[in-house]
Amino acid sequence: MVESIAWIGNEIQILDQSALPSTEKYEVIRSVEQLVEAIRALRIRGAPALGIAGAMGIALGSHGLPVNMSRDEFIAEVGRLREKIVDSRPTAVNLRWGADRVIYRMKGIAGGSVQLMQEEAAKEALSVLEEDRRLCERIARHGSSLISDGMTILTHCNTGSLATGGVGTALGILKTAFHQGKKIHVIVDETRPLLQGSRLTAWELQREGIPHTLICDNMAGYLMKEGRIGCAFVGADRIAANGDTANKIGTYSLAALCRYHHIPFYVAAPYSTIDIQTVDGGSIPIELRNEDEVIKGPYGPHAPSGTRAYNPAFDITPHDLITAIITEEQVFQGPLFRFSA
Amino acid sequence: MVESIAWIGNEIQILDQSALPSTEKYEVIRSVEQLVEAIRALRIRGAPALGIAGAMGIALGSHGLPVNMSRDEFIAEVGRLREKIVDSRPTAVNLRWGADRVIYRMKGIAGGSVQLMQEEAAKEALSVLEEDRRLCERIARHGSSLISDGMTILTHCNTGSLATGGVGTALGILKTAFHQGKKIHVIVDETRPLLQGSRLTAWELQREGIPHTLICDNMAGYLMKEGRIGCAFVGADRIAANGDTANKIGTYSLAALCRYHHIPFYVAAPYSTIDIQTVDGGSIPIELRNEDEVIKGPYGPHAPSGTRAYNPAFDITPHDLITAIITEEQVFQGPLFRFSA
Repeated sequence: MVESIAWIGNEIQILDQSALPSTEKYEVIRSVEQLVEAIRALRIRGAPALGIAGAMGIALGSHGLPVNMSRDEFIAEVGRLREKIVDSRPTAVNLRWGADRVIYRMKGIAGGSVQLMQEEAAKEALSVLEEDRRLCERIARHGSSLISDGMTILTHCNTGSLATGGVGTALGILKTAFHQGKKIHVIVDETRPLLQGSRLTAWELQREGIPHTLICDNMAGYLMKEGRIGCAFVGADRIAANGDTANKIGTYSLAALCRYHHIPFYVAAPYSTIDIQTVDGGSIPIELRNEDEVIKGPYGPHAPSGTRAYNPAFDITPHDLITAIITEEQVFQGPLFRFSA
Repeated sequence: MVESIAWIGNEIQILDQSALPSTEKYEVIRSVEQLVEAIRALRIRGAPALGIAGAMGIALGSHGLPVNMSRDEFIAEVGRLREKIVDSRPTAVNLRWGADRVIYRMKGIAGGSVQLMQEEAAKEALSVLEEDRRLCERIARHGSSLISDGMTILTHCNTGSLATGGVGTALGILKTAFHQGKKIHVIVDETRPLLQGSRLTAWELQREGIPHTLICDNMAGYLMKEGRIGCAFVGADRIAANGDTANKIGTYSLAALCRYHHIPFYVAAPYSTIDIQTVDGGSIPIELRNEDEVIKGPYGPHAPSGTRAYNPAFDITPHDLITAIITEEQVFQGPLFRFSA
């Protein structure tokens, strides 16, 4: 299994996802500033992997602070680093969740020295990674029961090992169903503008030997109409208290098209993606990214110079379009989701 | 107005649409083989422009035949050229319509010499071009009454001057509404895989000074949900007798999403696009194009080498999803379309 993010000698190592699929290149991250830049440039991406990055970012930042700092100074400084990390991408709740979890543990060391807190931060960041690996497996076990032998499954963006610390969320479910011996076929949305489907999901499926076909995003509806899609599985970047789900742009269109064609539409995500503080989808901030991602494509300009574009990174799928939300804890059935706080 | 195709001294001149928007390059076509290659490579495209290309192709091919041929030999040879032209793209009915119209006129010259038939072919091909210019204006007049001041209109692919011999069909309507003084804003689907929206439609709108915003195809549904699309206008490559419409892949998804969001969905096309011989959409052949168009994008590979892709050039929108079909003859209201033969 490919490691999207690792903690190596008080530094973070990431697989540079912007270089895939042509190059498998690893990058060592030595400062919070470098991490923030890598997150913004999507060299590390995927909601659960961002949770790990948030946790490791705090550990990395803590280790960069002088051990002779006072405890209060240290905690205040870590708080400033937290802001930088959390602000790097506004929609994914996991980034904040991962960072806050490490900070909570550090603060919990009663009267601990800065050095002890630094060590605790690294330990906790590693726990977050290890837990993510295990919870991916539990999500996959829960979700794979929804997949029957011979099914063709549509997926969007990348929700595999590259997006997590384990087998993945939605894609982890598909891999697990395949390794259980089910003959599945995966239809991969290329996922414009940044092509995480063609660049990353097709790459993971090819490595696993899972049969798949790449399509342009605008082809999915026609395949549904032709009866060629059994169900759809996607991930999530934030799930509101009522089940409204922020995920990669294009998810909402798929959910609406699935409803129109009476096709089950599943969301798979760690429980930490559920943000009980956010009442509904209307309160989730949507990251607007640079217009050039739409105008230019990965290698060059598509549109005339001067063209204006709209580039929301995510959209919101209302809870009533979601058949079920699969977490490591349980499978929540829609359209009324009841999460525990 | 840009001329996508012209008849110049018994040769065809086309604007090479594969080089747009970066380069405005014209190509002279001197043989049917060269025309067929240009059509397959989409250097000339758009259903009405293909109608003109079909007509000019017969004129060009006729002029290449020796004048000392017998009338029967000549007509048989023209029939063989017709097959080559018609086979170059299977979905668009206009190609066949344009070719057959010229052949019908040539054959109508009772006892005419080969030279007379050649002259008649050129004359008729020019009539097809001139008629297309005029019927675009009539389509635009009919359609622009459906657009109100301040409206935001979604469009897909390219249906403007580049796709026709005039102002265009769907895009011609939008241009006309704008020049009537209506403050409109056009949302342009980039139209993967070949990006006719970003490369061609954005280029035409920029030249006309019409406000527009480029989006990836998977963003349209979310804009509809947010209440930011007033209506959608698309073209057509073939319309069956019951109103089922073949158009650029992605059209069906838009039509289903418009229905789901109660947004009017309009098709604009010359009456010659209606193929009374084709009972319904199930009988329209769908051209499957090379997988590389999906895998590679315009400048380089997106997906890992060896990835398989699905690449239908068109899809079928059932008649009951179409609010109205706008032709030069009249505006046909759905969901039950009654065309005259």
